[in-house]
Amino acid sequence: MSIWEQIDQPTLLINETVARANIACMLQRAQSKGVAFRPHFKTHQSAQIGEWFRDLGVEKITVSSVEMAEYFADHGWKDILIAFSMNPRQTKRINALARRVHLGILIENMDVLPPIYLFGVEPLDVWIKVDAGSRRTGVDWQDKKGIHELCEVVNRIPRLRLTGLLTHSGHSYHAGSLKKVNKIFREGVDRLNQLRDELEAAGHSGLKVSVGDTLGCSLCEDWSGIDEVRPGNFVLYDAQQAKEGSCKVEDISVALACPVVAKHPERREVVVYGGAIHLSKDNLEVDGKLSYGLPALPSGEGWGAPIPHARVDRLSQEHGILWIPGPEFEQIAIGDLVFVLPAHSCLTVQAMGDYLSLSGEKISTFNKKAE
Amino acid sequence: MSIWEQIDQPTLLINETVARANIACMLQRAQSKGVAFRPHFKTHQSAQIGEWFRDLGVEKITVSSVEMAEYFADHGWKDILIAFSMNPRQTKRINALARRVHLGILIENMDVLPPIYLFGVEPLDVWIKVDAGSRRTGVDWQDKKGIHELCEVVNRIPRLRLTGLLTHSGHSYHAGSLKKVNKIFREGVDRLNQLRDELEAAGHSGLKVSVGDTLGCSLCEDWSGIDEVRPGNFVLYDAQQAKEGSCKVEDISVALACPVVAKHPERREVVVYGGAIHLSKDNLEVDGKLSYGLPALPSGEGWGAPIPHARVDRLSQEHGILWIPGPEFEQIAIGDLVFVLPAHSCLTVQAMGDYLSLSGEKISTFNKKAE
Repeated sequence: MSIWEQIDQPTLLINETVARANIACMLQRAQSKGVAFRPHFKTHQSAQIGEWFRDLGVEKITVSSVEMAEYFADHGWKDILIAFSMNPRQTKRINALARRVHLGILIENMDVLPPIYLFGVEPLDVWIKVDAGSRRTGVDWQDKKGIHELCEVVNRIPRLRLTGLLTHSGHSYHAGSLKKVNKIFREGVDRLNQLRDELEAAGHSGLKVSVGDTLGCSLCEDWSGIDEVRPGNFVLYDAQQAKEGSCKVEDISVALACPVVAKHPERREVVVYGGAIHLSKDNLEVDGKLSYGLPALPSGEGWGAPIPHARVDRLSQEHGILWIPGPEFEQIAIGDLVFVLPAHSCLTVQAMGDYLSLSGEKISTFNKKAE
Repeated sequence: MSIWEQIDQPTLLINETVARANIACMLQRAQSKGVAFRPHFKTHQSAQIGEWFRDLGVEKITVSSVEMAEYFADHGWKDILIAFSMNPRQTKRINALARRVHLGILIENMDVLPPIYLFGVEPLDVWIKVDAGSRRTGVDWQDKKGIHELCEVVNRIPRLRLTGLLTHSGHSYHAGSLKKVNKIFREGVDRLNQLRDELEAAGHSGLKVSVGDTLGCSLCEDWSGIDEVRPGNFVLYDAQQAKEGSCKVEDISVALACPVVAKHPERREVVVYGGAIHLSKDNLEVDGKLSYGLPALPSGEGWGAPIPHARVDRLSQEHGILWIPGPEFEQIAIGDLVFVLPAHSCLTVQAMGDYLSLSGEKISTFNKKAE
């Protein structure tokens, strides 16, 4: 029985060949630029996919929560950065984890330091979380006084190792042009380097600069002044990334297989089992209209290119309503599978909790559901 | 240790007293109108919360997938309607389930009937899924010929029991006024009754009319012509429902507890651990701007009223950025918990996978995560 015959409910497929090529490509890119590679595992969230990185010699990783750090520590990862501003309610868990692995955390304010101090922390790398322009969170890069004070206090706490300055320039998404993406990328790096120089002059030597985001790491060529990169999405990519230009649609390594349950020819709509609880409600624009992913048809052992001008027009809890304006509409029958390339693969992986490889193997994640 | 001290990561709280009152209220409403009550369990998704319905004598339920039907069958429910158009890829699972419980399915096209016929189905209730105006899916209510033919064919298949006509008028959300909600609600009921009369004249007697949606069932008073209602959201309610007027904010029985990790006074923003993977990206308008829920402060054993004019302004994977324009901003400290009343509780429950009661008891769901 082919995997197409096995699938009876929304199923997240992963093309291992494409995913492994994506990993090799980004690793090679970092190596060629002489920059340390600490990929973000919040996108794929899977110990098994982590092995595809380990096969290429990757040893340092980034995660987005203490819970995820615990999961990857359980799966043998020994050098983990939790790229989320320190949550003082998790001090004890962080401390327990630091006993097992080389752990890094982000600090952006003094208030979280007393519990660390009180609990008698294990050795920890501390990165100062800097807002270099994204306005999400972090100490404003212009708040020189605040950053200097924070470094002073961190240095005074035994076993906290002031390691470097870290930013995430998430505002490069929707920048609209390669020139603007480049500008935002370099702006972040340059601001962190300026801070590093000032801190060095104040006696804090050897600080590193860490930047993230798949878009900047995929598109920008000037990596000078960067010590470490933390892209994550590139292993899977998605429709948003393809739209922004960081990948081609054929580099997207995941697709949601959805059973077709109804067709409405008068409005060119196909109704699939596959809704907001599978894809998430993240979206992108297709021909100026909102779409929750890119519909595609089966092709060979996987899926084909996105159907031209087709959209995932609406989502409810379990329903997806696809709009298929071209002749592909007639090729789709009730009972068939249609594929949706996710708008945002991080959220789709989180929603689904596991993958199926094209050879029919189940690949579970940190967020896998109970059987 | 209070539950507030125990919580160290985003946690979905449920106020059992409020949820039980919501159940009693909707049940009493259906009973007073002499209409059968078949609540939709896709919102709460929990066997344990199901018991709160059973305590009041509820015996028939609605679910949104075969998988969810299997879960509730495993938890002792014996009369289940799968309110999702028949997916022919799941024929064998449906058949296996029909051996265990009194099962209902929705049919909206002929193409799904051959596999049912071929597999030699167990006795099944069949509801004709009618699109009475929502344009999601179902046979168009004006396609009289199609509906008559479908009924004929269903009647010809042994052990399929043609049971009634079913619609979901989901377009009542965003109708904008009670008058319009009423109009949409009655329009759906009236269109189904017209069809029923015509089918009766053609020899299909005893068909029932089933309608759904919490909004219509909460707000509309004229239930004539309805045999069964299937509201679901009312047990939890949410910010969207409160905005539409089907509940008051104090009727919302769930809130996401989020640890505060940063504050940015210059832009009145509080950063919490609690993002798109916890709340979902569903949203509503607050003061004309998009918000992913309603922020609230702790109060007594639970949470207080939503903070006036506050918004969940932005969400990324794990981060929530709350905008708190008033003096409540100064009351919030790093390390505190802030609460978010979900924009859409169905999707938040799905994302979280379990609840914590205000007495500290974990309540798991169909979608619970592996330990």
